[in-house]
Amino acid sequence: MNNFDFYNPTKILFGEGKISEIAKEIPQDSKVMVIYGGGSIKKNGVYDQVADALENHSWTAFGGIEPNPRYETCMKAIKKIQTEDVDFLLAVGGGSVYDGTKFIAAGAMFDGEPWDILKRGAKIKKALPLAGVLTLPATGSEMNSGAVITREETQEKLPFGHPLLFPKFSVLDPSVTASLSYRQAANGVVDAFVHVMEQYMTYPSGNHLQARFAESILLTLIEDGPGYYNDPANYEKAANLMWSATMALNGLIGAGVPNDWSTHMIGHELTAFHEIDHARTLAIVLPGTWSVLKSDKREQLIQYAERVWGITSASDEDKIEQAIKKTEEFFNSLGIKTRLSDYDVDETTIRKIVKRFEERGWHLGEKQKVGPGNVEKILKSRA
Amino acid sequence: MNNFDFYNPTKILFGEGKISEIAKEIPQDSKVMVIYGGGSIKKNGVYDQVADALENHSWTAFGGIEPNPRYETCMKAIKKIQTEDVDFLLAVGGGSVYDGTKFIAAGAMFDGEPWDILKRGAKIKKALPLAGVLTLPATGSEMNSGAVITREETQEKLPFGHPLLFPKFSVLDPSVTASLSYRQAANGVVDAFVHVMEQYMTYPSGNHLQARFAESILLTLIEDGPGYYNDPANYEKAANLMWSATMALNGLIGAGVPNDWSTHMIGHELTAFHEIDHARTLAIVLPGTWSVLKSDKREQLIQYAERVWGITSASDEDKIEQAIKKTEEFFNSLGIKTRLSDYDVDETTIRKIVKRFEERGWHLGEKQKVGPGNVEKILKSRA
Repeated sequence: MNNFDFYNPTKILFGEGKISEIAKEIPQDSKVMVIYGGGSIKKNGVYDQVADALENHSWTAFGGIEPNPRYETCMKAIKKIQTEDVDFLLAVGGGSVYDGTKFIAAGAMFDGEPWDILKRGAKIKKALPLAGVLTLPATGSEMNSGAVITREETQEKLPFGHPLLFPKFSVLDPSVTASLSYRQAANGVVDAFVHVMEQYMTYPSGNHLQARFAESILLTLIEDGPGYYNDPANYEKAANLMWSATMALNGLIGAGVPNDWSTHMIGHELTAFHEIDHARTLAIVLPGTWSVLKSDKREQLIQYAERVWGITSASDEDKIEQAIKKTEEFFNSLGIKTRLSDYDVDETTIRKIVKRFEERGWHLGEKQKVGPGNVEKILKSRA
Repeated sequence: MNNFDFYNPTKILFGEGKISEIAKEIPQDSKVMVIYGGGSIKKNGVYDQVADALENHSWTAFGGIEPNPRYETCMKAIKKIQTEDVDFLLAVGGGSVYDGTKFIAAGAMFDGEPWDILKRGAKIKKALPLAGVLTLPATGSEMNSGAVITREETQEKLPFGHPLLFPKFSVLDPSVTASLSYRQAANGVVDAFVHVMEQYMTYPSGNHLQARFAESILLTLIEDGPGYYNDPANYEKAANLMWSATMALNGLIGAGVPNDWSTHMIGHELTAFHEIDHARTLAIVLPGTWSVLKSDKREQLIQYAERVWGITSASDEDKIEQAIKKTEEFFNSLGIKTRLSDYDVDETTIRKIVKRFEERGWHLGEKQKVGPGNVEKILKSRA
């Protein structure tokens, strides 16, 4: 087992009605900025619940954070913070709103051009305190310190993070998912599923507990995901889904284990060029990553086949093939298509993505094998 | 799924050599008190590693915390703190040293007689910051905010806790377990195993992920426990054991699920009257709790039989019986005897324990059914 540090100070308030408890978690003298997305929270009652909870706080609001949050939009929020003396940020939304809020928290206190945080990995030294109310289980951003921001001007989607960006608290109220669309629900299941895979599907590293925890999340997503997709108002399914998505990316299952993340990095490019939903890009790419890197991921693919899908009486080769097939079928069962052609992506885009990997000199994955050559193979296998 | 709050800010520094990193986690101007037990850390090199790491800090030491730490001893440490202006406590040892340190941290800042914290559940309002270096995986105290203290004078063993008592950090270096005795190693495995059970073996509550996480810990303890018991110097086994024991009682698997803890409370009385090792008392009592409360725990016992022991082709009744038998055999395989007669405990003690439950009006367990009557049945079944 590799050495690791594990630290996660985010307090979780889980369950129906928990939004009403946020006031006691925010310093009384704070000036709060509620940050949200396209306005669905005004229709489903969450905005009103937050407003009620904050009745004794001074607060303002900033709406319009996009799916794949834009650098340009975050910069507008930073301007508003500086003119209105805001000193506490409350994200109310899904992973994009959380991610945008994290960038705003860091950018508002950054000495220089905040773009440098993304482009050059400039060091974050201070950040505004932030917290949130999660409305869409998917990204795990509600209990971690990382985020991804897109710059429209240059079609770039880049990650950043810092321990100062752990939310102070996050409310996870499964009843708020009742108004999600099937598409949002399905995306959330797949996003969480692939987060687990990026930390699990590498090579054996002696981390027996982390592997079993990862498999626990996968099994729960498989058990409760389809029911949740068909009815996001099913509280018990939504609750298990929500907690699984949070646990998929809060540092727990990745502690001391090799990580991959190449499927994500390829997927980000598909989103940057074609605006395909993040989760859908992962569902497209993942089976390709496994097929191309089958020999490197062999032992873990077999363990996954056996423990998660119960495929025990087949040759190793067959176990692997069946596990890849089962995974793609699972995505399809959630209404998610898994081929580039389903999204009208052709060779031109593949060439552009390969070129970006070349320009950046990227060789990603747990063994640094996902460079331009393998990216091309992976994407071509998903045509 | 029940509503819950989850909060655990303890930073974990995991792996060989991590003791050397503690200095940067402790404020430079702190006066540290290193608190330890019977002195084994002076023989196995851990004391020297800590001393080296603290070379640029001002520090003092207090040794002699007993297994089942004594109120009387903790009070001596509190006196020393007050005369030497200590303001940071570093537990270096197993769960008893951590537990003692937590009581010292709270007691040193308590307004009044610290015994009231235990006896009357008096509210803790302040505590000295504490952290630790774990030398014996077992109790989980290294990553939670609870503890148990014994008062010799009155033969009482009582629990307490407060969020202020989360360690700021804990070092988990599996290589330090190399010098543990077989007895200590075996006790650690069983202690962690029963911690999981107190949060798992109740009734179904729709917490699918928490149940699978609990089973993950059990499976890892079963996979790695015997190898670790036979050779505590096996780094990989020790690492999995250590992380499993920590995860067994850090709030994760108990979030939103019904808890039992009656096996622990009965076990504490066996320790108080007979000085039987904590883990051994649990191994004695647990099969009795399950047998007597079989109908209340029915669904979970069946799930445990199936998922943890792979007993799938038997009647429900047989699954339960086999699971109880397998569990007792697992304890025995670690050299732990599981009958009261093995420890020369007779009817007299059973009567004393039943009397204590009567006096305290205790009806424990997830359905408050473990009162004097069932305690008598449980203990008699373990004669």
